[in-house]
Formats: sequence, structure tokens, C-alpha cells
Amino acid sequence: MTASSRLAELGIELPEVVPPVASYVPAVQSGSYVYTAGQLPMVNGEMLAVGKVGSSVNEEQARECARACALNAVAAVVSVIGDVDRIRRIVKVVGFVASDPTFAGQPAVVNGASDILGEIFGDAGIHARSAVGVAVLPKDAPVEVEMIVEVAP
Amino acid sequence: MTASSRLAELGIELPEVVPPVASYVPAVQSGSYVYTAGQLPMVNGEMLAVGKVGSSVNEEQARECARACALNAVAAVVSVIGDVDRIRRIVKVVGFVASDPTFAGQPAVVNGASDILGEIFGDAGIHARSAVGVAVLPKDAPVEVEMIVEVAP
Amino acid sequence: MTASSRLAELGIELPEVVPPVASYVPAVQSGSYVYTAGQLPMVNGEMLAVGKVGSSVNEEQARECARACALNAVAAVVSVIGDVDRIRRIVKVVGFVASDPTFAGQPAVVNGASDILGEIFGDAGIHARSAVGVAVLPKDAPVEVEMIVEVAP
Repeated sequence: MTASSRLAELGIELPEVVPPVASYVPAVQSGSYVYTAGQLPMVNGEMLAVGKVGSSVNEEQARECARACALNAVAAVVSVIGDVDRIRRIVKVVGFVASDPTFAGQPAVVNGASDILGEIFGDAGIHARSAVGVAVLPKDAPVEVEMIVEVAP
Repeated sequence: MTASSRLAELGIELPEVVPPVASYVPAVQSGSYVYTAGQLPMVNGEMLAVGKVGSSVNEEQARECARACALNAVAAVVSVIGDVDRIRRIVKVVGFVASDPTFAGQPAVVNGASDILGEIFGDAGIHARSAVGVAVLPKDAPVEVEMIVEVAP
Repeated sequence: MTASSRLAELGIELPEVVPPVASYVPAVQSGSYVYTAGQLPMVNGEMLAVGKVGSSVNEEQARECARACALNAVAAVVSVIGDVDRIRRIVKVVGFVASDPTFAGQPAVVNGASDILGEIFGDAGIHARSAVGVAVLPKDAPVEVEMIVEVAP
């Protein structure tokens, strides 16, 4: 089953690529790899939530944010390779979670990204991952996700 | 001298792979590279220490944690390539140190990872590295380490 | 126009490679890629500023720091490939900004790195990028920058 048919089945339309907030591009292809910029949980031009997870943002909201980040990352990849079905493997995901220093549930938050990647790409969506709790993210976003993806030539 | 013989000489048995705390895998191979998930200082299923370095965890404990993370990362790589002697080069290491904002000794902490990699792999263990001080890590771990490794075909 | 001629035109002499503060090397080449260590804003052996952005360091100082980090990163790459004109593409940049938790302007800070890379490398300097706000950096640096670069064989 292809990623594009899974997206259709899930009723997910990939978002528009989020314009970078600074001097860079959403994704770069080099050889068989695409590296994405760090993606924020922007949906239709609005941040899904702002603030730190564990204080003003709860775990469930943050998980939704991570899912939105992942979809934006997939959209960023597609913006350079043209077709979601050219994605061969999600190789690596890093999830940065803006965290109150007492909140240690980053893995559950970043699962919002990992789970949707598994749903869309099946085995090809299973990746290595790091989740870390940072002090603050651009625009006070609760989550930022970046990926490395292997693509078909 | 091979990595496996150095491990034997050092009396180090690679740990069991730590099961991911979420929806991902400990390591992914893509072409000649293996990317690990972020590894926590779990030893026999127990975290070596919890808390922030510079307040509840001291530098020496944190260095031990970094060493444990590195061994878990090597174990994660071996779980996908089967043989530690197929590791050609430790290319990149990132060490995240959960830090009190006044603690700026992250390099000395992450040396716990770098030094053991040098002992095991010799010149092939000398890597590029980033060390950063973050707000908090999963399960309140003091250190998390991820690696990119080049492997023989 | 080559990177070396742009550097000359900009009046920029690449700095000496900053010696690692620990057991690693400034950059590692693997295949067509060079991975740099995290670079601090050291200029002539002195940190440009210390402290957290948004409290003791302001945005403009931090942007200058990010620029210095980027130049140190380019110098680190050149230390392994010998010639700046062998750089084919700046693929990925990660900028860690030591941030007061109320400061969310990391993108503007890390533009100090992105902009100088664009000036030196033109289209080849346009990269994917993540900017995150961390609790503290080695030696209390305000900014740390790492890069992945594609190089000519």
C-alpha cells in the first residue's frame, strides 16, 4: 500500500509548506536524502498552541502539536521531491519539546509525530528518534520536529 | 586491533538493547549509515541517575551516565548490523545534558561518551560532536546521547 | 563566483579552527559529507559574549555570535577538505540558542549564521535549518551551531 493511498484512507491532505521564518528553506535534498528544517505546529498559518509543556500546554495538546509538526515535515519533503510515494524510509526524527523543567514525558509527546508517520508509511515510517526537553522554541511553540528521509532516485 | 577485541580487553560486554520508550526503533540503517535513537543511561533496566546536572546530579555521575548512553548506542547499532566490527567510523555524536541553567560543563560530561568510544574504536572512534544543555530529558534522565555511524557494507 | 572569491570580496578571512574543548575533532568527513562539531562563538580565542539570550545577551549580540559560529564551522569543514571551494552545498544547520525561557526569537538569532552562509556560498549556502532555545551551552556560550555539508569528491 502506498503512502499516498494511506493518506487518502486516513483522510489526510498534506498541508501547504510552512514558509520558513528566516533565511533558509523548508527542506534540502542531497543525494538520496532529504533533510527538513525544524517544523513548528502551524496549521493554516496558526500555531496550534503556545507555551511550555507541563505548565501552560498539556501532554495531549502537545501530542497533537507533534502530529502537526510531522505532517508539515512530510509536506516539506514533498515540496522538494514532488511525490510522497518517492519517500523510501523515514530514517531519523528529532523532537524538541519546550518543557517545564519538571515535565519528563517528552516520549509520549513526540509519539504524536512517530505514530502518524507509522500510519502513513507503514514499515517505511519506523524511524530512529530522539526526544529532548528544551527551554523554549521559536514563537513559543510547544514542539518542533525535524526529519531525515531516504528517497527513491 | 578490532573493536570486539578491545571490548574484550576492556572487560566490557555490550548491554542488551534498551527497548524504545515509544513508537520507534533503537537504530535505523540506511545505506552505509546507522542512525541511533537518543539513548538514555539505562543499565540493567535502571536509570543510573535522575535529575539535572549542576543541581541534583554532579559532573562525575553525569559523565558515568554519558558513558552508559554511549554503550547503549553502540548496542543499538549492533542490533541492526549484527557485528561490532562492521562499524567503520563513529561520525557524529550529540550529547544532550539536562542542566541547571548555571551549569556550563557539558563538554566534560559528554566526554564520558567520547572517551569510551575512543577506547573501543581507536581512531575510528574519533567523531565530530555537539554538547548542549537542555531543560529536561525523558524520564528525568541527566544525559541522552545519539550517534551517526558509518558501517561496512 | 566561487566561495573563496566571495570571502575575499567580503573581506572575510576564515578563522583558525577552534580546538575542541574535549575528546573529539572539529569535523569528520564520511563519503561526500562533512559533519562539524558544535561550534561556539570563539573569535581569536575569546568568546564574543556569555550568558542567556533574552536576559544578559541581547538579540543583536546573539546574531553576531551565530555569525561567528558559522564561520568557525566553515573553518572546521575546510580543516578536513583543504579548500573552501570544494564545499558543494550547506545541507543542514542546527542552531542552539541558550535562551531565557521567555525569549522566543531564536530564528532571528540563527539568521546570523544563515545569512553569512548565503553571502559566502550563494545558492549552495541555502540550507534546511532548525533553531531551538536551550537551557545553557558549554562555557555559557549564547549560541552553538553545527552543520552538515556536501563536498566535492
